[in-house]
Amino acid sequence: MAVHEECGVFGLIGPRSGVIARDVYHGLYALQHRGQESCGIVVNEDGVFTVHKDPGLVGEVFTEEILRSFPGGSMAIGHVRYGTTGGNTRSNIQPMTVRHRKGNLALAHNGNLTNSLELREELEMSGAIFQSTSDTETISYMITRERLTAPSIEEAVLSAMHRLRGAYSLVMMSSTKLLAVRDPGGFRPLCLGIRPDGGYAVASESCALDAVGAEFIRDVEPGEMLVFSAEHPKEAPVSYRRHCGCRQTPCIFEYIYFARPDSTIDSVSVHEARVRAGRILAEEYPVKADVVIGVPDSGLDAAVGYAAASGIPLDLGLVKNKYVGRSFIAPSQEQRSDTVRIKLSPVRSVLEGKSVVLIDDSIVRGTTSKRILRMLRDAGAEKIHLRISSPPFKHPCFYGVDIDSEDKLIAHHHSPEEIAAILGADSIGFLPLSSLGRMSGLTDFCSACFDGNYPAGIPADPRKDRFERKLSERE
Amino acid sequence: MAVHEECGVFGLIGPRSGVIARDVYHGLYALQHRGQESCGIVVNEDGVFTVHKDPGLVGEVFTEEILRSFPGGSMAIGHVRYGTTGGNTRSNIQPMTVRHRKGNLALAHNGNLTNSLELREELEMSGAIFQSTSDTETISYMITRERLTAPSIEEAVLSAMHRLRGAYSLVMMSSTKLLAVRDPGGFRPLCLGIRPDGGYAVASESCALDAVGAEFIRDVEPGEMLVFSAEHPKEAPVSYRRHCGCRQTPCIFEYIYFARPDSTIDSVSVHEARVRAGRILAEEYPVKADVVIGVPDSGLDAAVGYAAASGIPLDLGLVKNKYVGRSFIAPSQEQRSDTVRIKLSPVRSVLEGKSVVLIDDSIVRGTTSKRILRMLRDAGAEKIHLRISSPPFKHPCFYGVDIDSEDKLIAHHHSPEEIAAILGADSIGFLPLSSLGRMSGLTDFCSACFDGNYPAGIPADPRKDRFERKLSERE
Amino acid sequence: MAVHEECGVFGLIGPRSGVIARDVYHGLYALQHRGQESCGIVVNEDGVFTVHKDPGLVGEVFTEEILRSFPGGSMAIGHVRYGTTGGNTRSNIQPMTVRHRKGNLALAHNGNLTNSLELREELEMSGAIFQSTSDTETISYMITRERLTAPSIEEAVLSAMHRLRGAYSLVMMSSTKLLAVRDPGGFRPLCLGIRPDGGYAVASESCALDAVGAEFIRDVEPGEMLVFSAEHPKEAPVSYRRHCGCRQTPCIFEYIYFARPDSTIDSVSVHEARVRAGRILAEEYPVKADVVIGVPDSGLDAAVGYAAASGIPLDLGLVKNKYVGRSFIAPSQEQRSDTVRIKLSPVRSVLEGKSVVLIDDSIVRGTTSKRILRMLRDAGAEKIHLRISSPPFKHPCFYGVDIDSEDKLIAHHHSPEEIAAILGADSIGFLPLSSLGRMSGLTDFCSACFDGNYPAGIPADPRKDRFERKLSERE
Amino acid sequence: MAVHEECGVFGLIGPRSGVIARDVYHGLYALQHRGQESCGIVVNEDGVFTVHKDPGLVGEVFTEEILRSFPGGSMAIGHVRYGTTGGNTRSNIQPMTVRHRKGNLALAHNGNLTNSLELREELEMSGAIFQSTSDTETISYMITRERLTAPSIEEAVLSAMHRLRGAYSLVMMSSTKLLAVRDPGGFRPLCLGIRPDGGYAVASESCALDAVGAEFIRDVEPGEMLVFSAEHPKEAPVSYRRHCGCRQTPCIFEYIYFARPDSTIDSVSVHEARVRAGRILAEEYPVKADVVIGVPDSGLDAAVGYAAASGIPLDLGLVKNKYVGRSFIAPSQEQRSDTVRIKLSPVRSVLEGKSVVLIDDSIVRGTTSKRILRMLRDAGAEKIHLRISSPPFKHPCFYGVDIDSEDKLIAHHHSPEEIAAILGADSIGFLPLSSLGRMSGLTDFCSACFDGNYPAGIPADPRKDRFERKLSERE
Repeated sequence: MAVHEECGVFGLIGPRSGVIARDVYHGLYALQHRGQESCGIVVNEDGVFTVHKDPGLVGEVFTEEILRSFPGGSMAIGHVRYGTTGGNTRSNIQPMTVRHRKGNLALAHNGNLTNSLELREELEMSGAIFQSTSDTETISYMITRERLTAPSIEEAVLSAMHRLRGAYSLVMMSSTKLLAVRDPGGFRPLCLGIRPDGGYAVASESCALDAVGAEFIRDVEPGEMLVFSAEHPKEAPVSYRRHCGCRQTPCIFEYIYFARPDSTIDSVSVHEARVRAGRILAEEYPVKADVVIGVPDSGLDAAVGYAAASGIPLDLGLVKNKYVGRSFIAPSQEQRSDTVRIKLSPVRSVLEGKSVVLIDDSIVRGTTSKRILRMLRDAGAEKIHLRISSPPFKHPCFYGVDIDSEDKLIAHHHSPEEIAAILGADSIGFLPLSSLGRMSGLTDFCSACFDGNYPAGIPADPRKDRFERKLSERE
Repeated sequence: MAVHEECGVFGLIGPRSGVIARDVYHGLYALQHRGQESCGIVVNEDGVFTVHKDPGLVGEVFTEEILRSFPGGSMAIGHVRYGTTGGNTRSNIQPMTVRHRKGNLALAHNGNLTNSLELREELEMSGAIFQSTSDTETISYMITRERLTAPSIEEAVLSAMHRLRGAYSLVMMSSTKLLAVRDPGGFRPLCLGIRPDGGYAVASESCALDAVGAEFIRDVEPGEMLVFSAEHPKEAPVSYRRHCGCRQTPCIFEYIYFARPDSTIDSVSVHEARVRAGRILAEEYPVKADVVIGVPDSGLDAAVGYAAASGIPLDLGLVKNKYVGRSFIAPSQEQRSDTVRIKLSPVRSVLEGKSVVLIDDSIVRGTTSKRILRMLRDAGAEKIHLRISSPPFKHPCFYGVDIDSEDKLIAHHHSPEEIAAILGADSIGFLPLSSLGRMSGLTDFCSACFDGNYPAGIPADPRKDRFERKLSERE
Repeated sequence: MAVHEECGVFGLIGPRSGVIARDVYHGLYALQHRGQESCGIVVNEDGVFTVHKDPGLVGEVFTEEILRSFPGGSMAIGHVRYGTTGGNTRSNIQPMTVRHRKGNLALAHNGNLTNSLELREELEMSGAIFQSTSDTETISYMITRERLTAPSIEEAVLSAMHRLRGAYSLVMMSSTKLLAVRDPGGFRPLCLGIRPDGGYAVASESCALDAVGAEFIRDVEPGEMLVFSAEHPKEAPVSYRRHCGCRQTPCIFEYIYFARPDSTIDSVSVHEARVRAGRILAEEYPVKADVVIGVPDSGLDAAVGYAAASGIPLDLGLVKNKYVGRSFIAPSQEQRSDTVRIKLSPVRSVLEGKSVVLIDDSIVRGTTSKRILRMLRDAGAEKIHLRISSPPFKHPCFYGVDIDSEDKLIAHHHSPEEIAAILGADSIGFLPLSSLGRMSGLTDFCSACFDGNYPAGIPADPRKDRFERKLSERE
Repeated sequence: MAVHEECGVFGLIGPRSGVIARDVYHGLYALQHRGQESCGIVVNEDGVFTVHKDPGLVGEVFTEEILRSFPGGSMAIGHVRYGTTGGNTRSNIQPMTVRHRKGNLALAHNGNLTNSLELREELEMSGAIFQSTSDTETISYMITRERLTAPSIEEAVLSAMHRLRGAYSLVMMSSTKLLAVRDPGGFRPLCLGIRPDGGYAVASESCALDAVGAEFIRDVEPGEMLVFSAEHPKEAPVSYRRHCGCRQTPCIFEYIYFARPDSTIDSVSVHEARVRAGRILAEEYPVKADVVIGVPDSGLDAAVGYAAASGIPLDLGLVKNKYVGRSFIAPSQEQRSDTVRIKLSPVRSVLEGKSVVLIDDSIVRGTTSKRILRMLRDAGAEKIHLRISSPPFKHPCFYGVDIDSEDKLIAHHHSPEEIAAILGADSIGFLPLSSLGRMSGLTDFCSACFDGNYPAGIPADPRKDRFERKLSERE
């Protein structure tokens, strides 16, 4: 296990056409919200892999010239990645391509293993060397080591899965096959679609299927492996369910914040789950107010639910500046503004003299929320009732979401009442832990960040930089 | 008159500080929606102008290194511009800086003159040469020619205003003064704010005042000129109202689409005007339906109004991909997708089996609307009642909004019923022309694009490329 | 007069072909040594000008994509420019294009006027405004003002020439004509060639004719104007010699340093002139030595001459690092190296224990020479006899060469003997002033930088920043 | 074995200073001629490696901002690389950094193994996976596998050397040591220097020592390993000579073309070797002529020798355009020029009516030579006697020089007389094979490209793309 990674994976197989890299490009555009640090595409043309990957957004890394430089092919995979910046991270950019005894393998991975360090040590004992700090390299090794003796790449992956602990949604290519794998808990999402030409797409979220004109078929089941063949690209994938049937623990945070509202994950509409969260908040924390306001973009869906259930009219009281991107230079201390004020602006006519219900998806450190409340007060809001469409954030995630260490989580240290006082809210309400099931419609899921119950355990060394530390202690 | 330009202007004056270029940078970020093609900043340090301007978004053109290269100063102006791309347009990027008999002048301009060609011919007769095709150069000449005999830059501007016809909101700097001017009709907006340190800001929209921590004081009156002095940067501006008192004709389209909803223009909240448009649509075109959906971002405010007035619940049925920017490479013909489908995604659970009221701000060619309706049908919408928060678009604009020639305007050729049929809507309703006053709360305004009444006339040669044509016919 | 500029100009006319911008590109590549700060190309297609110009080297500014974006056309001009960097200089990049009463004009200019400030003041009196600080804009005005009354562009240029003082080699285009003009003194070079397809090329140096496959015909005569017609692109140019016959004062420094050795200027081979300079040095300052070494690249030709005349063998004792370009980051004070040592390396085997004659083209401040001598001593040279293929540099240039103000010229303050002591040379010899004629084979020329005789006078205000100063003193 | 690579390696160790990355940067600048495709630097700060590597020239990849982002440290290594372009090559960029059982290892490599494919297969058998096609990865594996059992990194390297066949000059870093290794044949150069602060530098060529102010101590001996300790950075390196004493086979082509003339390799000055080659040519192929001309830059040194031995005067008859770099866009077929004519220009006055001895370092395909001769004829040369300072090129290189497959080598198919006829030379003379010893002063060396005797054998599959082929034949 290494750096925390939020990511999106994508794969395509279909009748040969000249545009497969462009299709992957559009699929990755739809998954961009899952990772903005780097991205990559690998096209497989008759067993030869062509790779391009670099730091940057999809629209920055892939120019017309680069898309044109890809060959045609019947299979391709892609990846978007979020991670911490730094000189060494270029080697962590995915997909990863490796050459092994039996051929080539390209991998795109979303999730985090909890036993990566143990597996790495074991691999190193038998001579493995590592060029990155990513779990993807660990997984590559586990699979290719199994492949030395396994009769096929399929069997190698199934064997390797016995050893991997934690969260992993994988899209992989060998010379002749495309493979999609979801860990037995199903922490991270993965779904399957079919295209009008008979080809198939697999993606982290269903919104990426829409982006390439594919029709959603179903979610990949936790523990399931789908295998597509380049030789028969229009044939339905073979499903291997040897690892299915464990306790299913999909990440509840995908519904709360991470996924796009137009996606459907494990048969649940993300938008609907958020609307239900808003409805629950209205039931649990009713209040007399003039207007319901959502913090764009992730608080808007729950605001719809709160307004509908409470009868308080919904309005758009905060406007987001859509041009503030990675290159934005924040105001300095000497200036009279701050980044939050440039990213978000209040609409005075909506707020002035009003009692406002403000809906946001979560509170992490509390600093942004505090500034938003200050801004609403300055714009004339008389009362602000803060409603949060998730339970208090108290614990770090070890399964693929980059959450601050608990030291910095405001809810780790303070009760809701204290938080309301710190942020300057007249009242506060968090989604009850017990309502996560009703919100999502799921009976079992991972809510470790809220309750501290880690279904796949935690790493031996839970520090974020455990991998780097380990190293500097040696030779 | 030359190329159509939608633009934003910004100006600052205040006690000397090291960060004036950064403040302008943040002001321009807030105006970015008014022009994404190019931008520029001019800082005035003791009469010496430092300029940086280039094609690109504010966040692309101004890097940390470039912001640092600006000197301090007590005055600065900035500009964002929309225009057609092309090899020749670099010379049109604003602000423009000129040296004339009596000193230096920097200009930033939003609007379009209707007598630019006549003025240029007259100027050329007496030896003027032009390096761009922009009205800004024409205005520079008119002002500096007057300055040859006028006793001050103020008098020169006031004299030049007698000759200019059309729309112009100007922010200008001489060596020692900052000037803000709005044409007698007040076509384009311009407002004034004060900063905590006693300095002043002028901007196309009030949202830019917020971005730099300035408090809105009032709109610049149509025909008014405000003059600030570098010597006394905290002194209130001198107001010259010699050109005030004409018929006021602010652009109604600013409220419908162009301005940001958190801005207030001529004492009217843009958000509220849009909400009222939605209410009027609900009264004029009531319909039985399950859900109200706005097309993001510009249809959302009116959707709030329609939902409130009709009692039909509002929901978020379309999701916008916020990463699709200028570098996006659209799907090719061979691919199974289109740009609209990647920019906008339907939320199936909101639409499936529903009767939908869809709110958009305007219909220009109709091609995008047609694709959106197709997409909603594919996502299961049973009925689609299209409601447009503006009257049918029938005529080109000659005052600063880039609207397609009337040949391409769908409403120029078709009745509402025909448009509904073409787009595949079950019913359609446009905001009645007679309701524009109620919507905006204004008694007089320019609605030429809807009714063809041009308060400042039309250019002698109304073709978009009239300037280029003219030239190639000579020598 | 404004900023000092060293530049190269280029023009083409010929039967319509799709590649005229590419030909200009290759012509500019050959002139790159004349200016590395910025460059530009204007193509004339049936009277419509397409411009691209930007800061940077020819190979940086013009990409394949940009070259492809130019239309075909029968005429085009180009420019490379050297100047000081700074925020304001973008407006000085050439060619300049202006629209005037009678049409369009594109200009590329090499040289400096001495009466620019006077002309600007006169023009400003009658309402001219300036957007740059370059002489090119002054010249544009002078020509277009004359064109108001002159019956043709030719007559306008001839009239304007009566008013211009100083150095100017111009290549210009109207809608239908290409014009090449050299000032009556002929300060800067300009030559004419014919292409295999019957078209013509004009260029600052003959090496650029070679680069586009044109055969050298002759130099443009001082004071001459050549006019080519787009209608008859294969017809020989019409020559106007109204301003010919003045005292000819071509710049002697072109032969010494500025021009490329494979160019021929005013019938004199630059390489041969440099070889002759070396021969003269051998005669005037003979010395007993083991080897003759030239400082690359500009000292190599004279070293050939010195070796031939003296009988001392020539060797290559200094190697130039050809990769050190504009982006090179110099060693810091803490490091044990310096830029000169990375740009130039001594060949120890050539120098060790040897008595060396070191040939360089000129000494300006003396700092680089001092480091080179230090480096040769470190590499084992026992004696170093420095021979300079030009007279001592004592005066600034006002005609287009960027020479340091005299304060910084080592020869302004020190005798040759003192210079030898400062630099650490065992002996020194400069080309005698009286030998410049023999060296160049010319009977009359400008050698103001050596003798202070300025054939076209000096500007009223000779300070480099006189233009900027002037301005900040006004309004 | 994989892609052919010409490369330069560099390493530094010394007392802690803030500028070690800058010193490596300057060292790489001096080695840029050895590889222009990509480059990289790794700094070791207390065992933590910071890497930056990318495609491009040293001056493009390393900006001020990037150099500043490196930490200080007492050790660093760098690499410049030449290779074929393509989507997959990013993974081949060096230095390579790997994490293994016992720590970290960074490697920079110049050369090519001949048994890489065999070693890779063996490694794959035991579970190795490969992310690149470079020999460097093979070497990393060999060393780290040995390290599993070896008591130290030194012993691991010495053991691995028993298995490596072919050419390798290596500069490596562990957490605490810097290692420099040269293969037992000494195919590629490697030398050692000491810096004024007591630290050490190792480099492919001595010119890079000069660039960082280091004094040349001696060449690393073929088969030798030098080990420096971070703990005692000023202590002399420990030398391991277990692999010394084999037949020494340094590459003769370094002297002929590849190395810089100011470098000294294995105690022989490159410049002097080239001068001797010119002298030998004058003795072997005397001719009556007017002038000796070298093709810049690599033919100039031999031209000095030919002129000195023959008494025929040397002149500079060809001028190189120093601005033609990687971004240069070659003339198209329709244009009347070609790339050779823009890169090189004849000096007519030197050539016209003359009998010319033209010296070049080698002839590969013959196409460039043919164009140069054509150009000299066009410039008036009456006779052209071509003298080549190397024997005819007949065989490919498998030890690190990128030479065309023999099919394309003109000397593989034609006798010297035939070549003279094809190129249009009046006579031709190649350096006799038997003179290579006298030229270089060496008694033993590799001249396989001339005589086909491969001292380290040839790869099992000698095709350039053998590695890629191999793969696509599997799984």
